[in-house]
Amino acid sequence: MSNNVSLELKAEVENLLNTYAQCIDDDDLENWPSFFTEKCLYQVIPRENHEIGLPTAVMWCDSHGMLNDRITALRHANVYQVQWYRHILSNPVMSTSDNGKTINVQSNYAIFKTCNEGESTVYNVGRYIDVIVREKGALKFKERSAIYDTHRITTLMVIPI
Amino acid sequence: MSNNVSLELKAEVENLLNTYAQCIDDDDLENWPSFFTEKCLYQVIPRENHEIGLPTAVMWCDSHGMLNDRITALRHANVYQVQWYRHILSNPVMSTSDNGKTINVQSNYAIFKTCNEGESTVYNVGRYIDVIVREKGALKFKERSAIYDTHRITTLMVIPI
Amino acid sequence: MSNNVSLELKAEVENLLNTYAQCIDDDDLENWPSFFTEKCLYQVIPRENHEIGLPTAVMWCDSHGMLNDRITALRHANVYQVQWYRHILSNPVMSTSDNGKTINVQSNYAIFKTCNEGESTVYNVGRYIDVIVREKGALKFKERSAIYDTHRITTLMVIPI
Repeated sequence: MSNNVSLELKAEVENLLNTYAQCIDDDDLENWPSFFTEKCLYQVIPRENHEIGLPTAVMWCDSHGMLNDRITALRHANVYQVQWYRHILSNPVMSTSDNGKTINVQSNYAIFKTCNEGESTVYNVGRYIDVIVREKGALKFKERSAIYDTHRITTLMVIPI
Repeated sequence: MSNNVSLELKAEVENLLNTYAQCIDDDDLENWPSFFTEKCLYQVIPRENHEIGLPTAVMWCDSHGMLNDRITALRHANVYQVQWYRHILSNPVMSTSDNGKTINVQSNYAIFKTCNEGESTVYNVGRYIDVIVREKGALKFKERSAIYDTHRITTLMVIPI
Repeated sequence: MSNNVSLELKAEVENLLNTYAQCIDDDDLENWPSFFTEKCLYQVIPRENHEIGLPTAVMWCDSHGMLNDRITALRHANVYQVQWYRHILSNPVMSTSDNGKTINVQSNYAIFKTCNEGESTVYNVGRYIDVIVREKGALKFKERSAIYDTHRITTLMVIPI
């Protein structure tokens, strides 16, 4: 329920979700860690594992250092086909807890991937479950979990979701 | 046009649309009827039929009883492959009528389906045309019509749209 | 950043984006030019061309006259398979410039196409980059660029994006 979230806060949260997606889609990945608090949790996990409480993740980072490492690896170490993501976000539902200091958000996403051959295909669909807090005035992800339905991932997941 | 809809009401309507989608996608189907007024209209119809005024629907319910029956059938009678829906909603355009007591909304949707083999595919795209009223303080669908473009439905439609 | 955009203006911009999409999806194409200022820029360009500064566009119009011509051609001259578009819009991020008189918006889109055979497929994904101004009280696109990822377009692009 969004009932206890003011329109101003709702717009600010939506702006965080939206600029996060644009950061990745515009290949501005060096800025990706800045969307998270210094100590954080970013994970990408299959829905089936999530539902039975298995912690296995295909991506897992718990600090800015680990987030930065992932981008460094992507830019310099990983060998992969040129590819573009396009995030489509939908229906964020949010509520606050901890006297309004924490915002809990669930939203749906679909990510399309376009590779060399030029066709755009459904790459990954699922939902984000987020814990958002304010740090130095700006909203940041304290936790962002991408829980995906698509359990056949045809290629190595290099770019974060 | 959204011109005569206040920002507060717009947010409340969006919350109804969003929680409806999450209810289905999270497989919380027993709560699905609660999004409708007791006497209601829920129908899923092909665009071509809608445009020529043919009433044929692939799903049709006009009361809580019928909505509940559908979920009971789905849980206990229908035999079908495990499948997940993921709703992506977009561009709701709304206006009020009946001295503000009725809200008319049109929005686009795309639903992705993931079955056992793990791939997520475009299952059904179309638009919702909704008539929303307030009942005991909460917004409910008096009418929800899902009018779909995708006229080749490859498998039995079991889960509501 | 949406920081300098009021909630009222944000809702008004979203309404412009949303009614634009419905205009096309509802096949109300004769009204499509009315979303633009008289002197305008509408272009559809591949991402690769955009990134290296090449101006080549698959659609390009700079006046109401040219926009109208395109619809006339589509209705009367072009021969193409019956097809429906369905726009899914996502994450608009906006800011104002020129003392609040100009609104700059970037958003993501995915367009699904349904042809005779009835299947809905991912037709084109990308982003809109818009310059919006107020003309006679109403918001209009002064510039709308659709920059698409999908560089293999399997059929002639007839209907505007």
